[in-house]
Amino acid sequence: MARNTYLTMKTPTEARELWFSQVAAADLGEEQIPLQDALHRVLSRPVEALRSSPAFHGAAMDGVAVKAEATFTASPRRPLRLEVGRDAFWINTGHPLPAGTNAVIKVEELNTDADGRFVGIEKAAFPWQHVRKLGEDMVATEIILAPGIVIGAYELGALAAAGVLRPTVFRRPKVAVIPSGSEIVSLGEAKEEDLRAGRVLPEFNSLVFSALIREAGGEVDTQPIVPDDPDAIRAAILAAAEDGADLIMMNAGSSAGSHDYTAEVIRSLGELFVHGIAVMPGKPTALGLITAGGRRVPVIGTPGYPVSAIVAVEEFVLPLLALWQSRSLPRKDVMDVVPCNALPSRPGMEERIRVRLGMVGDTCYAVSLPRGAGTVTSLSRADAVIRVPRDSEGLDAGQPVQAELIRTREQIEGALLIIGSHDSTLDIIDSMLRRKHPRFRLTSAHVGSLGGLLALNRGQCHLAGSHLLDEGTGEYNRQAMRDHLKGTPSLLVHLADREQGFIVLPGNPKGITSFEKLLCDDVSFINRQRGSGTRVLLDWELKKRGISPAKIHGYRDEEYTHMNVAAAVLSGRADCALGVRSAAVALGLDFVPVGVEQYDLVISRTYAEDERMLALLDVIRSTEFRDTVTAMGGYDASRSGTLLWEYDGE
Amino acid sequence: MARNTYLTMKTPTEARELWFSQVAAADLGEEQIPLQDALHRVLSRPVEALRSSPAFHGAAMDGVAVKAEATFTASPRRPLRLEVGRDAFWINTGHPLPAGTNAVIKVEELNTDADGRFVGIEKAAFPWQHVRKLGEDMVATEIILAPGIVIGAYELGALAAAGVLRPTVFRRPKVAVIPSGSEIVSLGEAKEEDLRAGRVLPEFNSLVFSALIREAGGEVDTQPIVPDDPDAIRAAILAAAEDGADLIMMNAGSSAGSHDYTAEVIRSLGELFVHGIAVMPGKPTALGLITAGGRRVPVIGTPGYPVSAIVAVEEFVLPLLALWQSRSLPRKDVMDVVPCNALPSRPGMEERIRVRLGMVGDTCYAVSLPRGAGTVTSLSRADAVIRVPRDSEGLDAGQPVQAELIRTREQIEGALLIIGSHDSTLDIIDSMLRRKHPRFRLTSAHVGSLGGLLALNRGQCHLAGSHLLDEGTGEYNRQAMRDHLKGTPSLLVHLADREQGFIVLPGNPKGITSFEKLLCDDVSFINRQRGSGTRVLLDWELKKRGISPAKIHGYRDEEYTHMNVAAAVLSGRADCALGVRSAAVALGLDFVPVGVEQYDLVISRTYAEDERMLALLDVIRSTEFRDTVTAMGGYDASRSGTLLWEYDGE
Repeated sequence: MARNTYLTMKTPTEARELWFSQVAAADLGEEQIPLQDALHRVLSRPVEALRSSPAFHGAAMDGVAVKAEATFTASPRRPLRLEVGRDAFWINTGHPLPAGTNAVIKVEELNTDADGRFVGIEKAAFPWQHVRKLGEDMVATEIILAPGIVIGAYELGALAAAGVLRPTVFRRPKVAVIPSGSEIVSLGEAKEEDLRAGRVLPEFNSLVFSALIREAGGEVDTQPIVPDDPDAIRAAILAAAEDGADLIMMNAGSSAGSHDYTAEVIRSLGELFVHGIAVMPGKPTALGLITAGGRRVPVIGTPGYPVSAIVAVEEFVLPLLALWQSRSLPRKDVMDVVPCNALPSRPGMEERIRVRLGMVGDTCYAVSLPRGAGTVTSLSRADAVIRVPRDSEGLDAGQPVQAELIRTREQIEGALLIIGSHDSTLDIIDSMLRRKHPRFRLTSAHVGSLGGLLALNRGQCHLAGSHLLDEGTGEYNRQAMRDHLKGTPSLLVHLADREQGFIVLPGNPKGITSFEKLLCDDVSFINRQRGSGTRVLLDWELKKRGISPAKIHGYRDEEYTHMNVAAAVLSGRADCALGVRSAAVALGLDFVPVGVEQYDLVISRTYAEDERMLALLDVIRSTEFRDTVTAMGGYDASRSGTLLWEYDGE
Repeated sequence: MARNTYLTMKTPTEARELWFSQVAAADLGEEQIPLQDALHRVLSRPVEALRSSPAFHGAAMDGVAVKAEATFTASPRRPLRLEVGRDAFWINTGHPLPAGTNAVIKVEELNTDADGRFVGIEKAAFPWQHVRKLGEDMVATEIILAPGIVIGAYELGALAAAGVLRPTVFRRPKVAVIPSGSEIVSLGEAKEEDLRAGRVLPEFNSLVFSALIREAGGEVDTQPIVPDDPDAIRAAILAAAEDGADLIMMNAGSSAGSHDYTAEVIRSLGELFVHGIAVMPGKPTALGLITAGGRRVPVIGTPGYPVSAIVAVEEFVLPLLALWQSRSLPRKDVMDVVPCNALPSRPGMEERIRVRLGMVGDTCYAVSLPRGAGTVTSLSRADAVIRVPRDSEGLDAGQPVQAELIRTREQIEGALLIIGSHDSTLDIIDSMLRRKHPRFRLTSAHVGSLGGLLALNRGQCHLAGSHLLDEGTGEYNRQAMRDHLKGTPSLLVHLADREQGFIVLPGNPKGITSFEKLLCDDVSFINRQRGSGTRVLLDWELKKRGISPAKIHGYRDEEYTHMNVAAAVLSGRADCALGVRSAAVALGLDFVPVGVEQYDLVISRTYAEDERMLALLDVIRSTEFRDTVTAMGGYDASRSGTLLWEYDGE
């Protein structure tokens, strides 16, 4: 089996500088295009006005054009009569002044004779009054726009006014995107039913790249998927180069694994400058240059995992496209944030951690998203990215740090941050909130009920989602609030009652109908994490029955959400989980109810009157919300939004 | 002639609220589109994952899949041999785990037998090591994206991973744009030679609107130009409504002038809610609703002048499109700025003043652009907009105020601000600077040489452009620096020598070859403003000759740039101007040289080593710059960039 190793690891900046020193000088060339097609294209040279604007002295008002000097005697006491067609000429806004005139008198200031032969004025006109003078806006030959400017709406106006109907712009850089891998199928060929059934692995990096490249002004040529074979990869790269690509992106196969041929192929066709970058995710990136048909074409081998691939695209591809077009890439807006959890990091590698944000009072708190390089939802869910520097072992919880924003400040400020137990209805609240109030959203982080109350007590969120049973009273959440929210006055608002039960394979092959059945040797269980309401429920039920948790296979195997335990059952990883009915229904699994529990929102009194919170309460009290939740199955939302208790924090 | 008047003037916010209360509820409807076409479309409903991702437990590394429990005895001292095909299965990243396995051991950690039948390990695998578990990223039926989200590159990835190949999005709002006016021709029909000659007035608002509407997610249907005729306007609006427009924009004719029929037509076809807004520019805007074919369609009549029209579009059209799509409009970034000049304003009207910005030290200075509603370059040149509130009479120079940014902070921070005399070579410097350093630019404001030195002395700019002759010594700029830059150590750097002379019509019909000739009764002159170098030169030449300025016709008629005085000659407004050769050449005029003058840059020592300034010096010392300037005619740039003098400020 082929084996290869990384070159000396470079930082992203070192890698970029090395690669750019070899490839940045490429000349894209220019083209002239119709103005109608010029939106978002990039000017390649200074634009000179081809005409003056206005191109003549024109009326700025509707009225009559006059020679100002001929009106100097006019006054209210000595009005002046001007003969239409000789001393005064009717004129509309925008029209050229007749020869010999140099001022316009507004129609409102005229007294018109009955027969229209004369107009009377009571005030002198001063020269050039209400006249847009030739060249007032721009004069022919003047430079009106500079190279590197992206043509937006305003620039279209300036170009048209300047008579430039075919501006000269950079040719779009042509990027060949070559997906590779023997296990993937292209989205165009994938059938929805195969995808649903998990029979095929869709290739979508090329779609994501394509969007980023188009937004950066490039043109994308996505090639068919190339198998993991060095000859096929070589042939695809050469074909793309011969087809005129300005840049070739080989996706996947850039690592140092046994089936990773990209780096070697680049080396064999030209030069390999960089292989391996000290950044996580994004490490397996290769940067080089090939020579084909007399042309030197830059090639990048990007990692196969989407989150790693994005880092490679954003660090190397987009800056190169910008440089070629004389554009400056917008710097990302940054914000000081406080991580709610510790963010460990491997020294020697810069880590990029995607986080969700919530402005709680004056502090912006950050909750990290799963860090797997394959977790594409960490891209779509992230509000910002925290960079942990190369020399750091990570960040402690509570240690302020700068984050690079992905969302706008307004979107972040419009978010309510809920930390706590996971429930699917939270996603419904978010969607309905956004529909009714586009400025608002609900950002949720799942750490279990107890974790949510602790976060609320530390002031790290606006509200918490909780279903903590008190074994003494059989009541939900009140005792937990008394125990964990000292000094944090808060409201307990009901969200929904939901069924908990055993999630099992269709037909319940192991016949799991009681907690005792979990003790069987041939039954494996998948648990929820400590501090989750479901875990409390399980432990209470086991305790009531005198069952020792240690005797249950898989008791120590934990997942963080209802959906994830259900997925574990579906995949055969476990035979049984305790969870809500909606999770079982969602995955087509069977459900054996063991009881009804109460899922509530615990709202900090500080934010109870906040406009975002009022909007949220409005949503959960709506019929639309109740109907939607009921339709999911296993929920009773008839009392959602009811204030159950006001806790004074003492 | 028809006359109409405005309704009671509304503020922009009042107007928007009134109009939206009638029209915002419209339901766009949805459509399902292929994922490949979904970039920048807006999700209309919550998106549920159709598949789990990963859809199976898959290898996260290349290596062998094993049952972790079977490896627990392995250690460096007691390596374990696993039989390939029975205890261990070769697997590549991304591939599903064979039944019965639950961990992956990396290829790097394996010792492979020569014949490949066995692999050896020295370490136990823990369960689920290097495995991407089913549903780790998302679980089928989970809500992964909320309505109102604009589909970007990351969202495309999430949708593809979720198996959503045909997302449901809002139908694009369809906006009919109807240009009106009897004096304009459409860009598509305008011939470039007619435009250049000023024979036709191009209609370009529809192009600008179209770009803004498309960027806001709308679809544009631009109609043929409608003449200023109420019946034609009525017919065009009705046709657009019947054609399914969600919004109709009638451009021009919305004022209260004699030919402005839009408001009346709207009233006759439905309801007119607003006519006249308390904002400058933008006042002549009409907002209403018509009923046609049983549908209620919102109509906006926008002003004809481009700068006014933009305000109407940004205040009313874009927010409505956003609301219909459940999007939130990004709030504009704001910055504290200090105006260099006073910004008078009319009480009762909110004024929007477009400005250019320069970060000089820690202060961001603002220089206002021409405020004419027809000045389209004030759109393309502006870095920001200052709003002067309705109840204010304006802002004093030096009074800090918030500005809404049009450019990014990075672009503003990358700009060198030059204030002073106008010279065409400054535009060339800007273009070359941007080409070589996309982060940098040169922002220039023209207030004449003396104004530039005074601004430099107040610390309001990085450098000044000056050509001030000292009558005593015949030297340029040094005496002026001593007189006006006390306490501001600065460098005098040569930019170019340029010819000054009389700018006259081709053939010099009035035979102007000397300053004495300006005294003739039939000769009119157009002057430059006081404090400009050219004015100083003129006054010096007149004084030397004992000519009284009062005897020159037009001596008091002033313009601010060389190009504008040349345009005045071209248009016949004056017979002669004093100015640089390049301005005459540009407009095809004749030029009678009267001497050579020295145009220099005066650079504050504080910024002399600034990287932007070093880049600028680099540009003006380049052969490319010298060649380009020489080619303009009338310039000698052979010494450009030479340090002439270091002034210590004392």
